[in-house]
Order: sequence, then structure tokens, then C-alpha cells
Amino acid sequence: MSGSRSPISIRREDQSQLLNEEWPRQAAPNNSKPRAASTSPRPDDGILSYRKADCFFPTFQPTNLLSPVAYISAESANRTGSTLKKAVEHLSNPNTISLGGGIPLSDFFPIDGISLRPSSFDNVETREKTSSQTTLHATKHDIADDTSVYDLSVALNYCPGYGSAQFMRWIIEHTEIVHDPPYADWQCSMTIGNTSAFDMCLRMLTEPGDCILADKYTYSSSVETAMPLGVKCRWESSSSESTWIARWNPAEHNNARKPSLLYVIPTGQNPTGTTQSLQRRKAIYRVAQKHDLIILEDDPYYFLQMDEYGSTASEIQSPVEFFKRLVPSYLRLDIDGRVMRMDSFSKVVSPGARLGWITAPAQLIERYKSHSDVSTQSPSGLSQLVFFKLLDEHWGHEGYTRWLMHLRKQYTMRRDFILSACERYLPRQIVSWEPANAGMFQWLKVDWEQHPNAKDKIADLIEEEIWLESISAGALVGRGSWFRSSKDVPCNEVFYRTTFAAAPLPKIEEAIKRFGEAIHKVFELKEKS
Amino acid sequence: MSGSRSPISIRREDQSQLLNEEWPRQAAPNNSKPRAASTSPRPDDGILSYRKADCFFPTFQPTNLLSPVAYISAESANRTGSTLKKAVEHLSNPNTISLGGGIPLSDFFPIDGISLRPSSFDNVETREKTSSQTTLHATKHDIADDTSVYDLSVALNYCPGYGSAQFMRWIIEHTEIVHDPPYADWQCSMTIGNTSAFDMCLRMLTEPGDCILADKYTYSSSVETAMPLGVKCRWESSSSESTWIARWNPAEHNNARKPSLLYVIPTGQNPTGTTQSLQRRKAIYRVAQKHDLIILEDDPYYFLQMDEYGSTASEIQSPVEFFKRLVPSYLRLDIDGRVMRMDSFSKVVSPGARLGWITAPAQLIERYKSHSDVSTQSPSGLSQLVFFKLLDEHWGHEGYTRWLMHLRKQYTMRRDFILSACERYLPRQIVSWEPANAGMFQWLKVDWEQHPNAKDKIADLIEEEIWLESISAGALVGRGSWFRSSKDVPCNEVFYRTTFAAAPLPKIEEAIKRFGEAIHKVFELKEKS
Repeated sequence: MSGSRSPISIRREDQSQLLNEEWPRQAAPNNSKPRAASTSPRPDDGILSYRKADCFFPTFQPTNLLSPVAYISAESANRTGSTLKKAVEHLSNPNTISLGGGIPLSDFFPIDGISLRPSSFDNVETREKTSSQTTLHATKHDIADDTSVYDLSVALNYCPGYGSAQFMRWIIEHTEIVHDPPYADWQCSMTIGNTSAFDMCLRMLTEPGDCILADKYTYSSSVETAMPLGVKCRWESSSSESTWIARWNPAEHNNARKPSLLYVIPTGQNPTGTTQSLQRRKAIYRVAQKHDLIILEDDPYYFLQMDEYGSTASEIQSPVEFFKRLVPSYLRLDIDGRVMRMDSFSKVVSPGARLGWITAPAQLIERYKSHSDVSTQSPSGLSQLVFFKLLDEHWGHEGYTRWLMHLRKQYTMRRDFILSACERYLPRQIVSWEPANAGMFQWLKVDWEQHPNAKDKIADLIEEEIWLESISAGALVGRGSWFRSSKDVPCNEVFYRTTFAAAPLPKIEEAIKRFGEAIHKVFELKEKS
Repeated sequence: MSGSRSPISIRREDQSQLLNEEWPRQAAPNNSKPRAASTSPRPDDGILSYRKADCFFPTFQPTNLLSPVAYISAESANRTGSTLKKAVEHLSNPNTISLGGGIPLSDFFPIDGISLRPSSFDNVETREKTSSQTTLHATKHDIADDTSVYDLSVALNYCPGYGSAQFMRWIIEHTEIVHDPPYADWQCSMTIGNTSAFDMCLRMLTEPGDCILADKYTYSSSVETAMPLGVKCRWESSSSESTWIARWNPAEHNNARKPSLLYVIPTGQNPTGTTQSLQRRKAIYRVAQKHDLIILEDDPYYFLQMDEYGSTASEIQSPVEFFKRLVPSYLRLDIDGRVMRMDSFSKVVSPGARLGWITAPAQLIERYKSHSDVSTQSPSGLSQLVFFKLLDEHWGHEGYTRWLMHLRKQYTMRRDFILSACERYLPRQIVSWEPANAGMFQWLKVDWEQHPNAKDKIADLIEEEIWLESISAGALVGRGSWFRSSKDVPCNEVFYRTTFAAAPLPKIEEAIKRFGEAIHKVFELKEKS
């Protein structure tokens, strides 16, 4: 069943066309001692024993590679990891019998078998529905029977903090195919999703009282994760970020030291739906280089990139073309090893599985694992097994890419649909928007100063008034103020976040109509006849 | 499929026989204002809409109920929870359409169905193997089709921080059947296992620099979880704990304030394998009352309680008898609402599922949820669905209890087996032990002072020498020093932790034999002929 699928055929040559020649791919003159890629040891303790993809590993050298140790918090530096998990190292001799760990025998897991039926979906290229007849099976004995490398005896038992070696192989291959990080010692660790990974990264890379850099509007849960740790978000999103950081004055920020962490949602940003261009990414990467920042790249919507609204771009026909149209990630640009990228299956397979991964220099991954071993432990083995069966044994990388192409088409259609509803039902003299070009959200700006009582009210009160009126009309939208990264900075703007992901199409239209009615009512406009 | 099973028939009357008359079950005279149980609101936001078990709820009043707020850390007090998850409150009107959350439609989850085959096992009572013919199924449409209350459309999507309402109902029923907490406003939240729950509880209940009380030897991962948070473990396990805490002197403990948290593994303690008697639990509970301690009860081995080694106790015949023989938990004794109990499925169903739960006063559960909503999010929905199918729809509480009875029998046999190997292969003049009476571990004490070079060596070096010799002989055991709660307190003892859970029986015997050979070699003893 593990078969001999080969990874899909998009390789570094195709991807490198995406980067223009300016971008350095070789060691810079002022480089620290370069390492020989061929001898660079990879701390894998088992992960790589399942790797198929060694031959694909990049040979580029780190240039200004950070010393991650300089960024590590006291909490993380103090982590010793799990003594018991480390003891496994003493089991390298296959004749050694372990009475060391309280690890149950698989006889004591009361599930003998599990099966799953993958969905069928429109195959863009062949215009045919994929077959839905397949059923994938796992038992406790597939490894012993040599029918799979992963089975219930493994999935139902304890697992290293970075996840199972079996599914990790798929994740490393996927990361290399899609992002091909341009330095040698990158590594991955599974996570239980980006929210937990963000919490753990903050605990690894910040101290209480720190500020981190984030967009003016950003994912509200991230702000709510950071705040109790005593970590505040700050950013001036202008063309002069570099100048702004350069003149960081602790006295203006509760004595917080100059930030060392930049948090960014580069694709289909939550809540604004915008996607940073390659040019913008390079500019921000250079700021990060200049000011020694680590970039925490939170990118769950990466594969939901769409053509510009209204463009007549031809339909994507193949996985190779699909990858070519994606804006390169920060990880793809990361010649220094200063990016921690957080990937998630939540928006493209299932949020309920609580499964994602981070990619970063091996030293940061090692710190992450030393934390997960004594906290989250690992993602659910049942989630990992189901994903392994679907993504590795059933779809392979090519099949998964076709699923992503299917999703992209669905979400593009939904994005187009909500925009057409906005055009139909929202008064353009009050509500304006830039069409989303990735992700799940359409961000709407309201010109609150046209409110009849604008002179007597602050923006936030008008935001609330519209929001409550919309709920009364039967449409719940997200308030822009929920997503402000700096809660304590006054903000005279009114925005709403709407999603085109969650409701059936007729309900999306009805909700936008109701939201439009609320706007009309609050602004005392006449309805369009 | 959800059927009309009724909970098994052990009820409060049976359980209360376990507690002697001394233990207060009514409001004490010096009680704070008692609450009327019938009007006491339960903050359920949906959990309880699935409850079957309301009629079983206890009517006992809290007596010296703590104000949990006094114990909450600054980090936890600052938690606002998740704004986006709270927005769901505005969806109480079923006609409201949400464009609020980025929650994918179930059409975009590429799994149509999942099936599982439960294992058969020896049914103690009927002496028959349970049938293995059953297969349990779930699709995306079982709720719509009215064939189940839980399906893939729910399991594969986002979930509240305390877990799904569907499986939570089973957990609350189970907790009431087994522990029946004697105050009104207890609540549960699912966790992703006790290690993560411990990390989150420490962040809720301690500040950096604090000490917590723990056994002299305790679970090493717990110490390793606490240490990076700046939290140290301290305890003098003697009959005079109360006196010892009373004269807590911050100057002797790096200026740490008097501890407010007691961490205890009461059943089949890890690593020592001991189980606190009811009398001991009551004594410690009284210490906690006197010194205003919260008890963090970490009890993954609760159902692996065994008869004393060598006893001729008759075999357990029924679920009612099984429950009667269990020592009551701290939660069962908790008249004040000062216990946070951590339960786990890891040792009795599957560790790979990463599924457990905590039980505590509602105010503490609310703080826990405000954390999980912006970090762990929830246990895997696939794990929850599989457990729901097995525990609720297939086994019910009675079937699950019969599974636990089966496990108890298996582990008792294994405990007896390792002890018989110890008797056969270990030199009793050097190695001594108290037979484990619960859990997975047999703790072995070595009289290191009989080592030929005892005068020139410290205990820890001899511990290491024996351990390495044992690895050379092909047997890995746990070193006692790994489990010391206070790493900085000198300790002239040598112990080893062995498990009877992990290896097939012949390998357990062989490993103990090898460990015995290592002891003989290090202590320069002649092998028994």
C-alpha cells in the first residue's frame, strides 16, 4: 500500500523562476563560516529514517544564518525536554528490552481496525469526478504484515513531540516541493494547529513585557494569545517600517526592548483578505535582516490564492501551473534561517483534526520539541493516521495538489459570489472594499463620518451600532475593532470582516443583503428601488 | 444508534459506603452562605444540552468552598478568551446567518465516512469473549439523517475549547458515576492529555518563582514542565506535612511564597507504584483545608487498582463490585471545591488519541477554557468521534466498565509476573521492594551502601553504574534520580522504576534477569547457582 509514488514533477528549476535574479542564493561575502551541506548532521532521532526525499535536499548554504540561541526566551532556554523520551536513545541495540517507559502494549488498545472513505471531487484537469469507491483501511498489524509503514499499533500509542516519523516524511517532502527553503539545516515539527504553535513560539521567543511587530489589523486570537503573556503587538504599516523600527524608543512602549519578532499572515490576511506581493515580501525580509528580526509566518490560507477579481486569467490546468501561480512564501525567501513558518491543515483539509506543522532552523525546532514533549506531546495519532492514509497512501503529493486546485476553484467562485452580492446590496458611497485575492475573508470599510451623528459619536460606537443593527436584521459579521493589534491605540476607522467560507451561497447573498439594510437604516439612506 | 442505554446501576448509595461517617457531607457550621442547589445556575453554553444525567446530580452543598479567583495567576486573570468564539452567542436566533467565523463548510472536508472495529475481550462476568463482529460507522450526514447526534461534519470542524458537547455528555456522566463530586457547581473540560493539562494548570495557578508541593519522587515530565516556568517542587512526605507547611520560611526557598498548590498522583503513583489509602487521602485533604491548598489530582491509573500482591481476594464479578473496590478519589472527597482532577484515557484506552479531561469548580474550568480557546483549541475531533462511537454508542458506561475490569485483570497478572521474576532473579540482600498495588510500575530500592566502593562513591554514581551495566546486559530501566521532585536537594538513595506494561511477559522476565545480573556484577556477588 505504501507504493512507489514519486513526488510530483515541479522542481526547484520551476520554482526559481518565481524569484528574480536579485535575490541572493549563495553565501554572501560577509558570511559566517559556511557549513558543508554534505556533512551537515541533521538531528533527526528517527524522523529521517522514513525519508524518501533525501535526494531532493537543497545544497544552498546559509548566508547570514542567525544564531537562534540569541532569540530564545529564559523559559525556553531552561527547557531540558523529557528525560523519559530521551531514554529511548538507549534502545538503539535491538536486543535491549525496555522496562523504562509506561507505554501500553497495543493489545490494550480496544480498536482493531479503522477505515475511511475519501471524498470524490471535480478533477480540474480531467473534468472527471475522482472515484469515490476507494476505502482505506488500517489495523494494528499492518507494519508486521508489511502492508503499510503506519498502523493502529503506532497511531494509538505515544508519539514523539514532533509527530510520527511516517507522516513527517510526507510533510517534509511537501514542504520541500512547495517552499524549498534555501538553507541546509531546516527541519519540521508537527503542531496541533497554528494557534497552539503561535502560543508555543511566543513562549520560546519573547519575554513578558516584550512587543512584537504585527499588522495594524491581525488575527484576533493571536492578539488574545499574546496579551496574557504580557506581549503586545505594534506595527506601523507604511513604506518606512525600517525607519520606524530603527528609532524604536523603549520609553514610548512601556520600556519594552526593541522587537525581535515580526508576526505576519502574508496570504489572504486575516481579517483583511490581502496578499503581500513578492516585492513586498522581499522588502519586509530586508527590514528583518537589517533589524535582526525573526519572521513568524502564519500562513493557513497559502493554497487559497486566487486570480484577481474580474481578471480573465485562464483556468489552471496542472499542478505545475498551480504552484507557479503561488506567491513564494517567506520560507522560500529565507536565505538566513530567520523564518518560523506555521502551516495548518485546518483550512484545506479539516480544522477538527488539530494538525499542522512548523518549519524553521533545526535549533529552533529542537527547542519547540523540548516544549511539546512536556506539554502538547503530539498531534492525535488518529488524526495523523487518517491524514497519512489520505495524503500519502491514497492521494500522494499530486492527488493532494489536485484537491487544493479544487478548493481554489471553489473559494474563487465563493469570493466572486460575495463580491457580486456586495455590489448589489451595499451602498458604495458608504461601504468600500478591495476584492480579496486569497483566503476566506472579504474586508469592508465603512465611511463612518457620513453617519448622521458622526460629529457627536466616536467611530467605535458607530461600528457597534451598525453591528447590532445587522444582527437585528439577521446577519452576524465580524467587527473590525476585534482585530486591532494594538488595543490601546485610538483608531478612527470602521471595518467589518465577512467570510465567504462558512455559509451556503444563497445565505451569503441574504446575509449581505441584510447587512446592507442595516447600513441603509443606520445611515438613514433610501433603499435602492 | 444513540439508543436508550441507561447508565450502569452503581449509584451514590453504593459509593457512600466507601466513605465513613466522619467525612462531612453537609454544610459545616462555619459555612459561607450556602447556595440553593436547585437554583444554582450551571454555566454550560451548550454542553449540557446533551446531558442525559441531570436527574443524578448531587444535591450536597459546598461547605468551605474556595473562591478560586484568589488562586488565579496574573496570566490567567488577564485572559479574555476568544472574541470570535464568544461571538457565537449572537447566533441564538436560528434565522441569523453568520458571516462571522472562518469555519469551512463540511463539503470541503475530503472524508465522506469512517468506520471502526472495536476489539473483543474477555468478559469477566460471562466468561465469554465479547463479539468482534460489530463495525461502527460515521458519515458527514448522520445528524441530518437522525442516525446519531455526532458525525463527521461536526468532528472535522472547529470545536469549543472544552471539547464537543456530544462526547462531553459521556464524560460528565462517567465522572458523576465514578466520582460523584460532593458540591454543586463542578464542571468538566476535555484536555489533550494530562501533560498539557498540567502545563495549563500551572500557568493558571502559579507565578514564576513559586513552589508547589509534590511527592519526593514524582512524574519526571511534571517536574520538567514546571521548571521552565520557574516553578519548583517541594514536599516532605512525613506524618507532619501540616507542621512543615505551617513553618514555611520563604528565606529557605529562594523567597518563594507559601505554596498554594499540591500536586499528587494518588493511585499507582508514578514512579513508586503506591496508592494512597482513603485514610491518607483524608489526612492530606485536611492539610489542604488547613493551609488553603488547591489539590491537583493527576490520576491516569485510577482504574488499574489491584488486590494486594499474594492476597486471595475473590475475583471481581460485576461493575458494581469493581467500583466498590476502588479507593475514592480526592474529587470524591472534595467538599470544598479545592480539587482539580486530571483524568486521562492514555493508560486505559489509547495514549495516541491525546484525550483526557479535568474536573473542577466551574470558575476554574472557565479559566481553563479561556486558555484552551487560544492555544490547544480542543482535542482532535477524530479522536473524540472514535471515542464517542466506542464509549457512548457501542459500549455505554457498563461496557466501558467491563473493559476496565478486563484491563485490571491483565495488569494484575503482569504485576504478579514481574514480582515473581524479581523474587527469582534479584538478590534480596541488595534489592528490596513493596509490591505495586496499582498502575504500571514496580519500584525497586537498591541498598547502595553495600557496594564494594560505597565509601568512595556517592549514591548517584552507583545508580549510574548499575544503570549502565544493566543497559550493557540488555535491559533498560528508569533511574530513580530522574523522578526526584527537588533536583537541588542531595539524596542518598538508589531506586529504579520498572514497568510491567510495555513488554511481552517473556521479555519482562528476561529483562529482570539481566537487571539482576547487572546488580550481581556491580556488587560483586556470586550468581545463585
